[in-house]
Amino acid sequence: MAVSDSGGTASDPSGLDYRRMLAAKKETGTVASYAAASLTAAKSGRQSGTRPDANTRRTEMVENSDADVLIETTPSNYRDAEPGMTHITGAMKNGMHVVSVNKGPLALAFPSLNEIAAYNRVMFRFSGTVGGGTPILDYAKNSLSGERITSFSGILNGTTNYILSEMASGMSPEAALQDARARGYVEADESLDLDGLDAAAKLVILANWVMGMKVTLPDVKCTGIRDITASDVKRAAENNAVIKMIARCDNNDSELVVAPVEILKDDPLCVNGTLNAISFTSEHSGTQTIIGRGAGGMETASAILRDLLCIRQGMSAGMYS
Amino acid sequence: MAVSDSGGTASDPSGLDYRRMLAAKKETGTVASYAAASLTAAKSGRQSGTRPDANTRRTEMVENSDADVLIETTPSNYRDAEPGMTHITGAMKNGMHVVSVNKGPLALAFPSLNEIAAYNRVMFRFSGTVGGGTPILDYAKNSLSGERITSFSGILNGTTNYILSEMASGMSPEAALQDARARGYVEADESLDLDGLDAAAKLVILANWVMGMKVTLPDVKCTGIRDITASDVKRAAENNAVIKMIARCDNNDSELVVAPVEILKDDPLCVNGTLNAISFTSEHSGTQTIIGRGAGGMETASAILRDLLCIRQGMSAGMYS
Repeated sequence: MAVSDSGGTASDPSGLDYRRMLAAKKETGTVASYAAASLTAAKSGRQSGTRPDANTRRTEMVENSDADVLIETTPSNYRDAEPGMTHITGAMKNGMHVVSVNKGPLALAFPSLNEIAAYNRVMFRFSGTVGGGTPILDYAKNSLSGERITSFSGILNGTTNYILSEMASGMSPEAALQDARARGYVEADESLDLDGLDAAAKLVILANWVMGMKVTLPDVKCTGIRDITASDVKRAAENNAVIKMIARCDNNDSELVVAPVEILKDDPLCVNGTLNAISFTSEHSGTQTIIGRGAGGMETASAILRDLLCIRQGMSAGMYS
Repeated sequence: MAVSDSGGTASDPSGLDYRRMLAAKKETGTVASYAAASLTAAKSGRQSGTRPDANTRRTEMVENSDADVLIETTPSNYRDAEPGMTHITGAMKNGMHVVSVNKGPLALAFPSLNEIAAYNRVMFRFSGTVGGGTPILDYAKNSLSGERITSFSGILNGTTNYILSEMASGMSPEAALQDARARGYVEADESLDLDGLDAAAKLVILANWVMGMKVTLPDVKCTGIRDITASDVKRAAENNAVIKMIARCDNNDSELVVAPVEILKDDPLCVNGTLNAISFTSEHSGTQTIIGRGAGGMETASAILRDLLCIRQGMSAGMYS
């Protein structure tokens, strides 16, 4: 078992104590200080700026580990998806199952990652990437077995939904954004939220997993919320509607779109605050909507746990040895 | 394979042709006319009023059949749950898996039926009893694995929700009921909808299946919507709320309640028309809401299909031989 962060790695084939691990991380800022012996080394390592070394060591660790599963939690990056991409492909080639809550590699290379997983006979799960603790991917894939989903549309980014909800209650776009920033809802790279990249990444994951499409981020027509004005919001209200940033996918035209659109106030999809919502339309069961909190630390941890349980079940069913 | 209705039974160990079956039912009113040979007999049988015989023959058929699965679709009855109860227990004792869309036996005897199924090593599925085509039971049981659901509350009866929605838009209680009747939304026995019995039956099924409680219909404190007046509805609107008939279950107090209560208009549970909605609160993933159409012919058929697929998978996984 091994745990890595940007400061280094702690590993022990006979297992790690999570309480001690939490204490070490809290005290020194890195899990590398977990083993009393490596404490000084790790600290001086960080101080002398050996991050590249930590990265290389982590990659080697992944490629040589005899663990069953890699849990990839580095931040999403939509330029080259690193370092997540290297971790995931390295682990798969090493025969490890993979749980990822990092959306970058899936947004840029879902079809290839799926093939690499199949070729190496490992399971690949990523419940935490869409909907946080709300099991949207599992619902669409398993609870609706025997049904064919023909289209879906959803509010997949809580931050922009918070901003648009505040605007609908009369706040100016600037004040709403400022409020969202003050609450810590906006990503360090604001473009991920405001230009719709985060929602587009989730749309790509859903389109691949639920609809069997082979698409990546450049296939999404993506418009953010930066141009929405107070008068747009007012005009919508006059039609008993609100403006929401909707991600949609339809089997008929195979188009993937993220854009602000007007939806009626009594549409089940019309949720406020940081909530996420998604409506699936299937052949014989009409439209079904799931609403829940988006990401959060506890929600993401819960999603990882579900994925680990699923992999555990797959392993005992002999799905992959 | 055999198919029964109130007019008789058609069976053939080598299989039945569903197109011919539909045509026979349409033409003569009973599937008993399926085989050309039995056509005259069945017709004269119905005319001379031999229904009791048809019932007895059906029970014998269930108890002696070598089919793998019984699909029980007789109407729900909350007095003695017959004839569904006899069909289901007879089939289980005969080693058949059971799919039921009849809520009566589950509402009155869920804990016992579960034990009979386990004792006879057969699978028992009933997706169609709650939420129609919306896989609420599966979602709660499977998609949230690894999580503990601590409470849930929902709008489980589409008819009363339609009436309350119409009242919220200004219709009088009498006019709203008349409108729902005219649209065919109200059950022949109006008490099932208006006094909350149908919602209470679904609450019992959820409490057993999702929360592991061992409860039956008499455990539910049930209040219908007959006493809701136009001024109640108006008073709610002044609080930015609406009156909805909510079924709820909480692990803390183990109370099962169906009653009209005020909920805020922007609560995700607040859906209109004949829609159903249910909110599950879990330990680590907050509150998640599922919204979908309630029962309908196509939705119920889709639920039966899902149950059959689940049983098929269980059989090939050797869960039960």
